[in-house]
Amino acid sequence: MGGDHAPRMVVAGAALALRDRPGLRFLLFGDEAQIAPLLRQREALRGACELRHTDEVVKSTAKPSQALRRGRSSSMRLAINAVAAGEAGGVVSAGNTGALMAMSKFVLKTMPGIDRPAISSFMPTTQGESVMLDLGANIVCDEYNLVQFAIMGAAFARTALGKEQPSVGLLNVGEEELKGNEAVKAAAAILRQADLPLAFRGFIEGDDIAKGTADVVVTDGFTGNVALKAMEGTSKLYSSFLRDAFTASPLARLGYLLARPAMAALRKRVDPRRYNGGVLLGLNGISVKSHGGTDAIGFANAVELAAELIADGLIGNITADMARYGHADDGQRQAVVS
Amino acid sequence: MGGDHAPRMVVAGAALALRDRPGLRFLLFGDEAQIAPLLRQREALRGACELRHTDEVVKSTAKPSQALRRGRSSSMRLAINAVAAGEAGGVVSAGNTGALMAMSKFVLKTMPGIDRPAISSFMPTTQGESVMLDLGANIVCDEYNLVQFAIMGAAFARTALGKEQPSVGLLNVGEEELKGNEAVKAAAAILRQADLPLAFRGFIEGDDIAKGTADVVVTDGFTGNVALKAMEGTSKLYSSFLRDAFTASPLARLGYLLARPAMAALRKRVDPRRYNGGVLLGLNGISVKSHGGTDAIGFANAVELAAELIADGLIGNITADMARYGHADDGQRQAVVS
Repeated sequence: MGGDHAPRMVVAGAALALRDRPGLRFLLFGDEAQIAPLLRQREALRGACELRHTDEVVKSTAKPSQALRRGRSSSMRLAINAVAAGEAGGVVSAGNTGALMAMSKFVLKTMPGIDRPAISSFMPTTQGESVMLDLGANIVCDEYNLVQFAIMGAAFARTALGKEQPSVGLLNVGEEELKGNEAVKAAAAILRQADLPLAFRGFIEGDDIAKGTADVVVTDGFTGNVALKAMEGTSKLYSSFLRDAFTASPLARLGYLLARPAMAALRKRVDPRRYNGGVLLGLNGISVKSHGGTDAIGFANAVELAAELIADGLIGNITADMARYGHADDGQRQAVVS
Repeated sequence: MGGDHAPRMVVAGAALALRDRPGLRFLLFGDEAQIAPLLRQREALRGACELRHTDEVVKSTAKPSQALRRGRSSSMRLAINAVAAGEAGGVVSAGNTGALMAMSKFVLKTMPGIDRPAISSFMPTTQGESVMLDLGANIVCDEYNLVQFAIMGAAFARTALGKEQPSVGLLNVGEEELKGNEAVKAAAAILRQADLPLAFRGFIEGDDIAKGTADVVVTDGFTGNVALKAMEGTSKLYSSFLRDAFTASPLARLGYLLARPAMAALRKRVDPRRYNGGVLLGLNGISVKSHGGTDAIGFANAVELAAELIADGLIGNITADMARYGHADDGQRQAVVS
């Protein structure tokens, strides 16, 4: 029931995802009166899903604490409960981000060794794709949060991108050791000496995100959220400039007609729907946040991402890494505290 | 002498700027043996400049404190001294950013009411241009720093963009009052009630930078630096995708040929050299940092920006605003302290 165009967009997205992955099965939670008619035309989806009715919805304006207290029968909460109960392999929602994080944390619990879960997503780069986190869950982060993000991000990249020793970069304002705030300097010191299944690349800068300098870009949720949206804004700005250029003269318009298939391929390449799906990392279950304003194609991508991470055993991989390496920072932490 | 291609690029840039603005006069500081031969071919520039020899150079790897102590006869320091002495209206350097900031602060002094100067630059937007600061001078900022950035940024926008009441947005992870870290929340509270010559727009998000939602985008130097470079990276990524698209097929290549003038206009529009020139705001003098890796065209833009700000009286405008409004936060500050 979450997102600007729900539940229509959610049902249409599930149908698209099912077409790509016929093995998928869905539990849909929400208002039967709205959803059942949408399923009527979709025979394949109807056969692959079970609709569970609830009237309650988490509003997009609800605070996380409110949602936790008052939203116990909400479609979002029931969907997360289904993951905890083992009925579903993961949950996908286009609803209230803060509420999804709070409820997922409360129901699925944070993994051992993780202080705070993070939101993570694929980013397009000149090399292909990389993983970036945190994209907004944690406004203020200390060095231990950042180190844990590095471990989780590396497990994500190993699972989803198939990189055995993913390279990890810490986002900073320069590459020199002395640059940056206390948290990034201390995190770099820990990552440099820790024995982790990743190749620590040191500090990277904002332009390294799109360059693909590192498979995993680690940063706090404030910086990550601003950078992600700043990049989205630039991509849209470039598109609008490109549109202006192609309508500047009759010759340019003709050029556009000839290059149209190539331009369609370009549009697809920079289409934000392709990268829709923020994975809440650090929980004992897959929870994926879809952009609230997306359409069926974007939502289908978030669903397929969740399906892929379930099939590839992301949770098991992170849990194993955390068990082996998650306490790499413990000696440090004690040294700092004592 | 600063920058990857100095002094050749600096001399060529000065010549380009002079062609655009024949009234300009230059003091060039640096190694005569290198610079004099470069001037030999450039009669117009030779007539408009005075070359002052020094062997000393601030290395790009020097720490700001080192540069301050040991670089007293460096080309950078002598150029800044010339501004303080009233011999030059402003200084432009493609050298070490930290050293330029430290020396400019030491020599030109920070304006009354300003705790810390900031680096500011124009950004391209769908509406035209906006001003963003801080882009990297201050890694950690409190609410008073942010409020002062807002006042300085507004004076900059009024001077350089001709906006009488510039709109100012505080960069954050959401628009709601409760979002963000303590510094942005406290700064917003001050800006909402202060009587300032600007229209406070509240919180804006990363994608608002390119949208041009606000004439002035205010943020701390860590977030600002990462966001700026992330946007530059995305712009380059888009360009490389566009190049791929135009070489994807013979038809696309033909389309490119027809659209070539339009594409050249597009390239010009997104050319980072156009926005070269970070203005060190909050000092009693114009000090402009050029990108170290730029070429003559980029350097000429930084020089012309400095010339424009000198002609338009930026320093006087900020000083006047600070005298009238700079203590708008004093009541607050006392309230917080007491």
